[in-house]
Amino acid sequence: MRAAVLRAGVMQVDDIADPAPGPGQVLVRTLACGICGSDLHAVAHGEQMVEQMHEAAGLGNDLGLTPHVMDLDRDVVLGHEFSAEVVELGPEVANCSIGDTVVSLPVVFDASGLHPLGYANAYPGGYAERMVLNDLVCLKVPNGLDAQTAALTEPMAVGVHAVNRAQMEPGDAAVVLGCGPVGLAVIAALRLSGVETIVAADFSPARRALAATMGATEVVDPAAEAALDAWRRVDGQSPLAIFEAVGVAGMLDTAMQGAPRGARLVVVGVCMTPDTIKPMGGVVRQLDIRFAFAYDAAEFSDTLLHIAEGDLDVSPMITGHVSIDGIPGAFRELADPGAHAKILVTP
Amino acid sequence: MRAAVLRAGVMQVDDIADPAPGPGQVLVRTLACGICGSDLHAVAHGEQMVEQMHEAAGLGNDLGLTPHVMDLDRDVVLGHEFSAEVVELGPEVANCSIGDTVVSLPVVFDASGLHPLGYANAYPGGYAERMVLNDLVCLKVPNGLDAQTAALTEPMAVGVHAVNRAQMEPGDAAVVLGCGPVGLAVIAALRLSGVETIVAADFSPARRALAATMGATEVVDPAAEAALDAWRRVDGQSPLAIFEAVGVAGMLDTAMQGAPRGARLVVVGVCMTPDTIKPMGGVVRQLDIRFAFAYDAAEFSDTLLHIAEGDLDVSPMITGHVSIDGIPGAFRELADPGAHAKILVTP
Repeated sequence: MRAAVLRAGVMQVDDIADPAPGPGQVLVRTLACGICGSDLHAVAHGEQMVEQMHEAAGLGNDLGLTPHVMDLDRDVVLGHEFSAEVVELGPEVANCSIGDTVVSLPVVFDASGLHPLGYANAYPGGYAERMVLNDLVCLKVPNGLDAQTAALTEPMAVGVHAVNRAQMEPGDAAVVLGCGPVGLAVIAALRLSGVETIVAADFSPARRALAATMGATEVVDPAAEAALDAWRRVDGQSPLAIFEAVGVAGMLDTAMQGAPRGARLVVVGVCMTPDTIKPMGGVVRQLDIRFAFAYDAAEFSDTLLHIAEGDLDVSPMITGHVSIDGIPGAFRELADPGAHAKILVTP
Repeated sequence: MRAAVLRAGVMQVDDIADPAPGPGQVLVRTLACGICGSDLHAVAHGEQMVEQMHEAAGLGNDLGLTPHVMDLDRDVVLGHEFSAEVVELGPEVANCSIGDTVVSLPVVFDASGLHPLGYANAYPGGYAERMVLNDLVCLKVPNGLDAQTAALTEPMAVGVHAVNRAQMEPGDAAVVLGCGPVGLAVIAALRLSGVETIVAADFSPARRALAATMGATEVVDPAAEAALDAWRRVDGQSPLAIFEAVGVAGMLDTAMQGAPRGARLVVVGVCMTPDTIKPMGGVVRQLDIRFAFAYDAAEFSDTLLHIAEGDLDVSPMITGHVSIDGIPGAFRELADPGAHAKILVTP
């Protein structure tokens, strides 16, 4: 089958062997798969990502399964934001039927342990024509929702989880720093939660326009006005949650020093480098800093339902489409963050 | 009256004018006043503290009063952990009577605004024989509690507030990094909250002994075993709150990288310098970092009641006594952190 393969640090398209479903697994045909910033990071800074995967693996997981960490000396097929059609059932399958359109948490487990789908050697991710998924983990896409929109369940769940971490109460306001796919997902999840004041900031005019479409009530260019100054202008008194969705060193401290007393600061942008803060700024403001990572299974399935029921309109986030052969080019294009939100691979 | 005065960056003992109580104020005779690490900091790094007071003042306060920030070019009488006897009533006093033993939040307000008692020019703090307090803010010391123990209400309230910030649930465990007065207050407050596993760490044998007396269930020398390793040895599975009560650059990241998934990290030690963290360690663990500052009025009065009712035995924290004339010498002695917990000034 056709697949984009991360091989020796380079994204290349090749023909690879089809995967075969084992007990409790199904073979699926990939219908759509989003390109994630983490995938770009895996290509540019793969060793660093492997190191962090080992660190996370050392903390264990809720399933108690042995975690597998990808080996970059072997092929990896990326892609963890996917929807797919079930085309073949392995033994002992009870949930899925041939022809189902499904999404799944990006993990596959088998007798050897847990494989992070999209960052694994043993199973190809969504940048391939076919994948193997666990029958029990597959969620059938309801309401006739189209497969491309359903593929946004995963990145949207990241936003839902970040907002859950903030424990928003009625009357709370939000500031979202950075309107890439993560920030946009946060904005949509805030809107879903009924938050009435959502101030969003990004240097890119295209992203600012998307932020307004996704539900931001005030959108600013930080070159012209700091996001927290904009919040003070339009509100300035509601209990505030600040979402750091940029992930560049210095952003956390900027947010801390600009925050009002008692603010919650949810770190959802992943800063991969060491970062310097001035703790006294956190002390005098009694800030909460809450790091958010991924989502849980309930948040993932809730997100799918909200999208299917029309509570969450994620379609504006889709700004481009490519075939599998177009993936290496799309990776180059996404190096310029202003031009796109989410590019979908449609094999 | 006799007072220790911070004058041109030097602690010196001098005779200064007695303060006079205005409307709603009382004149008190200082009975006991603890020496706080912040006081040592005000002498060593006064300009830095003034800068931070300005920053905090800029955030406003719950009373909506104009905050005053001390001017180090004028005299400052430090001392904010005090108990006192009411000796004279100003006009319009309804709460206090002559002879009452009282404690108070370390603030004085008047028509000009809010003065942080112990870091103010207009009112002397507890390193003087007499002070002026606001009648309405004074809390009468109940149950015949002795004045020296009552003077520990303020530092103990810092521990109570930090533990409240951690929102401990039954079955939660705690690790306390640093067993100076702040760490000891946290340990005592954890014990008061019914926390059964309290791991405490300090390089000083004397402080480790005090930590055990105050309620730590496992006490370690971090030179021999990291505090979080000790927690893994004795527990390793309860939901965990880590209290950073050292306040030195590097401690926060050490705690972050050693923390288990989902831990709360309460920053109660004040690191005055910039500090570097590796955010990815917080992300993969989904940590909460909660900065704790002081206490509120309810926590302050609750702390007094708990001490008076014998629920909180803070007396072991008192490791020395000095007169006002002995304050400059005590400041020099406290530069060696291992020898003392709390030295009380008893005018």
